[in-house]
Amino acid sequence: MVIHNIINEKYKLILGSASPRRKELLTAMGFVFEVKIPNINEVVDESLPPSEIVKTLSLLKSKAINLNSSNEILITADTIVFHKNKILGKPSTKKEAKIMLTHLSGNTHQVFSGITIRSNNKCKSDFVCTDVQFKNIKPAEIDYYINNYKPFDKAGSYGIQEWIGYHKIAAISGSYFNVVGLPCSLLSEMLEDFIR
Amino acid sequence: MVIHNIINEKYKLILGSASPRRKELLTAMGFVFEVKIPNINEVVDESLPPSEIVKTLSLLKSKAINLNSSNEILITADTIVFHKNKILGKPSTKKEAKIMLTHLSGNTHQVFSGITIRSNNKCKSDFVCTDVQFKNIKPAEIDYYINNYKPFDKAGSYGIQEWIGYHKIAAISGSYFNVVGLPCSLLSEMLEDFIR
Repeated sequence: MVIHNIINEKYKLILGSASPRRKELLTAMGFVFEVKIPNINEVVDESLPPSEIVKTLSLLKSKAINLNSSNEILITADTIVFHKNKILGKPSTKKEAKIMLTHLSGNTHQVFSGITIRSNNKCKSDFVCTDVQFKNIKPAEIDYYINNYKPFDKAGSYGIQEWIGYHKIAAISGSYFNVVGLPCSLLSEMLEDFIR
Repeated sequence: MVIHNIINEKYKLILGSASPRRKELLTAMGFVFEVKIPNINEVVDESLPPSEIVKTLSLLKSKAINLNSSNEILITADTIVFHKNKILGKPSTKKEAKIMLTHLSGNTHQVFSGITIRSNNKCKSDFVCTDVQFKNIKPAEIDYYINNYKPFDKAGSYGIQEWIGYHKIAAISGSYFNVVGLPCSLLSEMLEDFIR
């Protein structure tokens, strides 16, 4: 039996995230699950290494959701965009989005995701990092993207699976689905280890 | 104006490919186009470097389609999966698919795409290569994938945007959309150069 069939049959999987992209990817992986949304203040020491930040935040999200029975498995995740020693969050305004995309243009940045898997008696966290290399993006192209795609729900102000990703991302190194929002291959591996 | 708006306004774009994935990606890039299917025998000297093979095949596909007016731009592409000096084509049987995936398991292979852009008075070809790193895939997982996803229309017997891609591809290096079937970022660049 393959991993998603084992999980679907023997466990009750919970995705602790409001992200529509995480929900889509987990569904595409074959998992059946329930969504619970953690209510936390995403406050973390920004001087920590990015790998520690995403693991810590995924763990905080995990602890914010109560587990009821022993066959429940909770997945939480956190993703940050990291460029030149700075974390790029979700932009609040068009101006902020434009500043971020201008910084990313012609450069390579990192996308870090942390994942925590938790049951009533176990808890494991891990992370991955993907390098993303943008070509030069002209100011008119940045304006076009922001006006038409409104990337205000996206860390770093872009979605790789949108216009800007098709036209302007030359290459990545690492997991593609991590950049979309959920490092599927790491999650699959972690789940196999978790139920072993 | 951004590239797809210029092309849509001033040119008549033609995609010379029957691939549903190429059609989807070109649409997602914002282009409006017509589809024409080239009728060629995909015969090429397999001793050539893979970069030459995909450029040659994309050119042969291009030449197999007639252009009628001076504002037409034709896009053709060819993608091959290359592993240990061998080209992996589309599998004809479950057995063949299983042999290919067993070879790819635990290894890194290359996906090469060639693109040709042609009008009545110009013709340009180029290529890209992406490294794809598979984790170990168990025989039962290979069987599950082949039985449920029937990858008989896919070079190398897999789709990165399917179950096996989510669970078993650890990392890639290069263009993700190249592995899906169309190197969007290269194409965007080539089109900008072509109409300059």
